[in-house]
Amino acid sequence: MEISYLNGHFLPREEIKISPDDRGFLFADGVYEVVKWYAGFFFDMESHVTRLKRSLSELKINWNNPDLFPSIAHDLIRANKLEDSYSLVYLQVTRGVARRTHYFPSPEPEPTIYAVTWEISPEAMPHPDGVKVMIKEDIRWSRCDIKSVSLLANTLSFQEAHEKGLKECIFIRNGSLTEGSHSNIFFVIDGTLYTHPESNYVLSGVTRRNILSIAKNAGIKVREEAVPENMISSCQEAFITNTSAEISPVTEIGGIIIGDGNPGPVSRLLREKFDEVIRSLRG
Amino acid sequence: MEISYLNGHFLPREEIKISPDDRGFLFADGVYEVVKWYAGFFFDMESHVTRLKRSLSELKINWNNPDLFPSIAHDLIRANKLEDSYSLVYLQVTRGVARRTHYFPSPEPEPTIYAVTWEISPEAMPHPDGVKVMIKEDIRWSRCDIKSVSLLANTLSFQEAHEKGLKECIFIRNGSLTEGSHSNIFFVIDGTLYTHPESNYVLSGVTRRNILSIAKNAGIKVREEAVPENMISSCQEAFITNTSAEISPVTEIGGIIIGDGNPGPVSRLLREKFDEVIRSLRG
Repeated sequence: MEISYLNGHFLPREEIKISPDDRGFLFADGVYEVVKWYAGFFFDMESHVTRLKRSLSELKINWNNPDLFPSIAHDLIRANKLEDSYSLVYLQVTRGVARRTHYFPSPEPEPTIYAVTWEISPEAMPHPDGVKVMIKEDIRWSRCDIKSVSLLANTLSFQEAHEKGLKECIFIRNGSLTEGSHSNIFFVIDGTLYTHPESNYVLSGVTRRNILSIAKNAGIKVREEAVPENMISSCQEAFITNTSAEISPVTEIGGIIIGDGNPGPVSRLLREKFDEVIRSLRG
Repeated sequence: MEISYLNGHFLPREEIKISPDDRGFLFADGVYEVVKWYAGFFFDMESHVTRLKRSLSELKINWNNPDLFPSIAHDLIRANKLEDSYSLVYLQVTRGVARRTHYFPSPEPEPTIYAVTWEISPEAMPHPDGVKVMIKEDIRWSRCDIKSVSLLANTLSFQEAHEKGLKECIFIRNGSLTEGSHSNIFFVIDGTLYTHPESNYVLSGVTRRNILSIAKNAGIKVREEAVPENMISSCQEAFITNTSAEISPVTEIGGIIIGDGNPGPVSRLLREKFDEVIRSLRG
């Protein structure tokens, strides 16, 4: 029996219900995080908690205890007997339940805290052979730095990629590649690693930041700079990152083959270094 | 006892619950409509049903019977004994319940259909003396023509206005005034009525279209053209429209007083003509 979490209670998944007057349902007025369980530990939970606090703060949602996230996540893993598996834990916090008004309800409702876990399916695992992605003008809002559940644009865009048999939709804003519908993107040009700088147009991905740090430690030259769309054909390598799939080499972007169409040496090196970090944490 | 509607059932509001795995909650993957009950009839239900069908089609949500909306709305009014009141009926349709994936779930779940009604509070009624509004760069996505529940940007923006004691936040995109967080906006400049043309940056408001038609019939010159921000001080009148508040004269925009700071003759005339239409429907 699957166990999920709602507002302090661990319950069978089918028994967990929310009000349709929850502002998460009516207005996408909420935030979320996804952490990955590596058969024994969560990787960089601290960064996820930090980002969660920032998201809540940007939306002025007052959950008095975001530091509970790690223990909720651990308890969910245990309750679902997933200790020895690779799993994701999803946490969503919304402004709570109130009569529909565009302004924030007053008095302030209790936030809704929902968490669920599932074992990782093969699609969410790393793609060692690389993936092909599409590109598209970014139709999302201009606060992509907030990890909110206002994700309709992301799902519609990803669905376009999915229907074409592609593994991600990379967005273009002001002529530059920003990020994917649920990943950050990196490029290797003449030995230098590029990714879009932190801004309101990209999410500060936890894996993004860890990869930047790993790359610097490995002596790779790193530049947090936007890559213009017309530079795609000048890239020797590209890869996308996120919590669930970690690092996926990209072998084709918008129909343009990257390098020789196979994962390149920088992507492979960073993959190895990332795996080393995970192994070192396993102890 | 308040009665709401969920998936074919009319139930006490507290008994209506949805799954937190509803894509409306996880991804804002849904659309909505609001219709107004004038103590005996809904005004222009037909246009709302037409727009609902378009929204569903844009999101590829397959609800096989959007034509049920009028009867659901009527039944809700009756079940709540609101026949003789002024009320709103809110309908939301989402892609349904499924394990969280960015792509559309397969097999396709049944869409979730939720509807609720409430008597109109004074704040939602017309503001005959006019309202003051703020202006702000549009942070929303670029598919504002879809009436989706991906409304976080709208609520955050409206909240900013609310905290300043203002009644709406009007968005600026590419230097022009587009619409409000939950209203369309009109301007009178040298006797001509202006409003932003239909595009992906504005919602095709039902009241917007009715006002355009009423204005043309009244012999007012109408231009569906974007008004640049720097033209605000050249406006003699402005007003915002939506289903619940109909027409609200705007007496101040971003600190600039419009005309003499009182509702002007064109706004008053359109208000009268709109009321005439409503009276004629009452018969």
